[in-house]
Amino acid sequence: MSKRKYAIGVDFGTESGRAVLVDVANGRELATAVYNYSHGVIDEALPVEGKPVRLEPDWALQDPLDYVRTFKRAVPAVVRQAGVDPADVIGLGIDFTACTMLPVLADGTPLCELPDLRRNPHAWVKLWKHHAAQPEADRINATARAMGEPWLDRYGGKISSEWFFSKALQILDEAPEIYNAAGRLLEAADWVVWQLTGQETRNSCTAGYKALWSKRDGFPADAYFAALDPRLEQVIDTKLSRTIVPIGDRAGGLTAQAARWTGLKPGTPVAVANVDAHVCVPAATVTGTGRMVAIMGTSICHMVLGAEEKLVPGICGYVEDGIIPGLFGFEAGQSGVGDIFAWFVDNAVPPAYHAAARKRKLDLHQLLEAEAAQLAPGESGLLALDWWNGNRSVLVDVDLSGLLVGATLATRAPEIYRALIEATAFGTRVIVEAFDSHGVAVNEIITCGGLPEKNKLLMQIYADVTGRELKVSAAPQTPALGSAMFGAVAAGRAAGGYDSILDAAQKMARLKKQTFKPQPKAQKVYDQLYQDYLGLHDYFGRGGNDVMKRLKHLKSEVYIAKEPLNA
Amino acid sequence: MSKRKYAIGVDFGTESGRAVLVDVANGRELATAVYNYSHGVIDEALPVEGKPVRLEPDWALQDPLDYVRTFKRAVPAVVRQAGVDPADVIGLGIDFTACTMLPVLADGTPLCELPDLRRNPHAWVKLWKHHAAQPEADRINATARAMGEPWLDRYGGKISSEWFFSKALQILDEAPEIYNAAGRLLEAADWVVWQLTGQETRNSCTAGYKALWSKRDGFPADAYFAALDPRLEQVIDTKLSRTIVPIGDRAGGLTAQAARWTGLKPGTPVAVANVDAHVCVPAATVTGTGRMVAIMGTSICHMVLGAEEKLVPGICGYVEDGIIPGLFGFEAGQSGVGDIFAWFVDNAVPPAYHAAARKRKLDLHQLLEAEAAQLAPGESGLLALDWWNGNRSVLVDVDLSGLLVGATLATRAPEIYRALIEATAFGTRVIVEAFDSHGVAVNEIITCGGLPEKNKLLMQIYADVTGRELKVSAAPQTPALGSAMFGAVAAGRAAGGYDSILDAAQKMARLKKQTFKPQPKAQKVYDQLYQDYLGLHDYFGRGGNDVMKRLKHLKSEVYIAKEPLNA
Repeated sequence: MSKRKYAIGVDFGTESGRAVLVDVANGRELATAVYNYSHGVIDEALPVEGKPVRLEPDWALQDPLDYVRTFKRAVPAVVRQAGVDPADVIGLGIDFTACTMLPVLADGTPLCELPDLRRNPHAWVKLWKHHAAQPEADRINATARAMGEPWLDRYGGKISSEWFFSKALQILDEAPEIYNAAGRLLEAADWVVWQLTGQETRNSCTAGYKALWSKRDGFPADAYFAALDPRLEQVIDTKLSRTIVPIGDRAGGLTAQAARWTGLKPGTPVAVANVDAHVCVPAATVTGTGRMVAIMGTSICHMVLGAEEKLVPGICGYVEDGIIPGLFGFEAGQSGVGDIFAWFVDNAVPPAYHAAARKRKLDLHQLLEAEAAQLAPGESGLLALDWWNGNRSVLVDVDLSGLLVGATLATRAPEIYRALIEATAFGTRVIVEAFDSHGVAVNEIITCGGLPEKNKLLMQIYADVTGRELKVSAAPQTPALGSAMFGAVAAGRAAGGYDSILDAAQKMARLKKQTFKPQPKAQKVYDQLYQDYLGLHDYFGRGGNDVMKRLKHLKSEVYIAKEPLNA
Repeated sequence: MSKRKYAIGVDFGTESGRAVLVDVANGRELATAVYNYSHGVIDEALPVEGKPVRLEPDWALQDPLDYVRTFKRAVPAVVRQAGVDPADVIGLGIDFTACTMLPVLADGTPLCELPDLRRNPHAWVKLWKHHAAQPEADRINATARAMGEPWLDRYGGKISSEWFFSKALQILDEAPEIYNAAGRLLEAADWVVWQLTGQETRNSCTAGYKALWSKRDGFPADAYFAALDPRLEQVIDTKLSRTIVPIGDRAGGLTAQAARWTGLKPGTPVAVANVDAHVCVPAATVTGTGRMVAIMGTSICHMVLGAEEKLVPGICGYVEDGIIPGLFGFEAGQSGVGDIFAWFVDNAVPPAYHAAARKRKLDLHQLLEAEAAQLAPGESGLLALDWWNGNRSVLVDVDLSGLLVGATLATRAPEIYRALIEATAFGTRVIVEAFDSHGVAVNEIITCGGLPEKNKLLMQIYADVTGRELKVSAAPQTPALGSAMFGAVAAGRAAGGYDSILDAAQKMARLKKQTFKPQPKAQKVYDQLYQDYLGLHDYFGRGGNDVMKRLKHLKSEVYIAKEPLNA
């Protein structure tokens, strides 16, 4: 029997980076270590000496050196904790938030590391949730619509201010000197792989989901970029690259320097970078069609694989080779889920429930879950639209807002809590049915993320509402496991790893025994309520009554009139 | 100059009776005294010896002797407090909740005083909020519609389970022995006047608003009552009376016994009984057309006078001589106002605001009012339908429920509080405009009740939303003042009182100096929001989407299935 081999996955999150060391044979997690970024999310002022450089609202930056520090701290820590021989670590994979991008010199040096550019906010990493590029996103969409760009349909007809070219265009608009100084513009995911391997490698996942690339058509034409801004005409050839490497490939081997950072052997195979959500799919055992993966936390990301290209209205996008090589990876999302429950718990629960939770030694979510679980479907008399944070799929409209109907003088907090859970479940059902009715089958739902662990009632409601069995990933850290799996694939079978992510998933990924099956009685009630949810969904979301937009518009008008922007 | 004269008003409320002694010359309140009913609202079990007699849900009874005790305790107390000579008390008036009715012997003895009937709940007073007669109300409405009864239009097309014949029919349905034993069925308002004067006198206000009587057409025909139930054919002639006395008339003089109870002189003039809401109209200075009186508390009662008969769709009713002799009194209402704010404060405000209120030594309403006052109209981004307790006017539908739209993750409690206030103001505007557009002018709104005293922000919002100036009754106890005014009219000018309620109002009623004028800027924003309120109002309230009814229906279905009624 051969000696045990290990792979390491590094998951770069919003506040920290996490390394996990797993056994390649079975995916068992042997050690985990977290590095909290020294500068976290930079959203008030740059971490520079001298006169403070304040950031405008909606900005969110990071320091690229925090990523390097993650390698230096967390990777040696897991090797040490697990007590394994670094020579037995056969591969390394990483996943990242996206689109998180930065401008660098041609040699990879981040512009924010250059003393003369360090005080310019545009020289830093723009984090996924940097939301200051909405005007640029609007221009990208309007120009694409005007020119009849075919790729727009792949993204449900609208791209986001979070995406790559929105952020790139903001740099050009507001700091042309940074744009000009940048030899490369790239995803942080690809930048960290470059730091590990010494060579720039651009992954198909972020290119496809965030930068408008497709395997068949490449990037939008230069003429499109020129129409956006003449200075942008050559952006692909001068700042990006037309060489996009499918996820599942090997990016290279660890450089001597990266080997010193990590304590691993020089030459250790490194996988092409991945996105934190998408890397969960194989880590949740899904490498084929018919099984949706739902990453359930503050929001939900829904991913499902298809053998063919399909246009599904209102989804976030689909990318060939985007999740699993050889398949189309379809992505949709709900922009507010756990966030809505947190809002409710923080803002709308009276003291008596707080006191009861303390007495029963539960957190407030647990108490409300326990109370809400006493109710039968339909018993609250309430129905909500889960749009507290807008709607990402299938309406793709950030100006939609939350709605609650059915309140009476007898309505109590656990009833509203349950109605909010149900509303998010109805939102997932809309997405599931959009896929299913457009030829992308969803027969069951594999979940991962924080919510499935925390809230069993929610899981049962989702099963009852969607009519699908829900299963749960067994990995304590699903994204990091996925990255480690890609590390094992980068190593290849000859080195003790796997030749494909399918093989890796079969051995390394597994599900929990407990599943959540639809209950026919509850399903029947929810089928009825879902019709009313759809009625409200279409009335308020598809132009029947644009009151939500008018309220948002009025709110911002009033706010501007009340408080001058320069005050 | 003649010696000062006084009048006493007794206001019979839900939990207590209140006597007020006022100066007839100027309405100034010299003394007030409250008697808390010894049995309050009887809604769990009858106050009888022996084996308990439990009441079903929705029942609400009272003990008629509590009303007599009010005369015995509160009236002597105000005379004593004020230090006046009982001989200078020239008149007494009373007002009552309605419809609050009871079965009595032909001599006025309440059936619940008879030992052999005392343990029958139907022998007791049915309080206005006794809600167990809905099946009877449904039959009354259905039969009236089927027979094309013309009076139904006077009540907006539907009568309430709270009204006289709903309650009378419930007695007949469930306790025919009580119905048969009753020589008379009458309003408690008329019963207490009978106790004071020794003679039965039925007032035009309750007869008109609660018992389907009109000055021109009298009661519905015997044939209608026979169609409801053959045993009911002669109900008017056997249990009620066709002699209805207009409010403003004298019912009689105090009997020797009543003089002993009250400490007043035998023969002291007693006014025809009135209803607590309606008696506020002249007490709030309103004796003519064009000025709405709004009694603002847990709910709002809106009253306005008209010179002509007008059909206003969806109002509660209109009665000639119902409020002021010679005019038509129109009544409408909102079933939830202060109740909704109380619901919110009790059920949806997180601990931080409770703590802030304690710190600032405010109650939670005051704190939320102060915070909400910082917001400009439209700034919350929220809009609500104020139907937490159904809709009384103009939709007349108890199955409607509350709705909130516009919630985001940034929504905070004071914003919702303000949106709820605004929603009730929009609800008042719907009523004001219904009157105005059907020929019953509403040029300004005179308010009384608890809310105008407590919440200045609410008053300003109502002015801004309705576009009407709001004024406030100066009387500390508006209904009791109104009753005292009618007492002074019962005495007449020759005895030191007045010959008409118009004269009495001119001298005895007054308004506060502070008024609330519409602010043009706020009006403009609210005009815009009102259009959206109307859009939602009609969509959810007039059949565009009956989701509220379906939710209520489902809730009761589920509830019944879950918890057998006999469990």
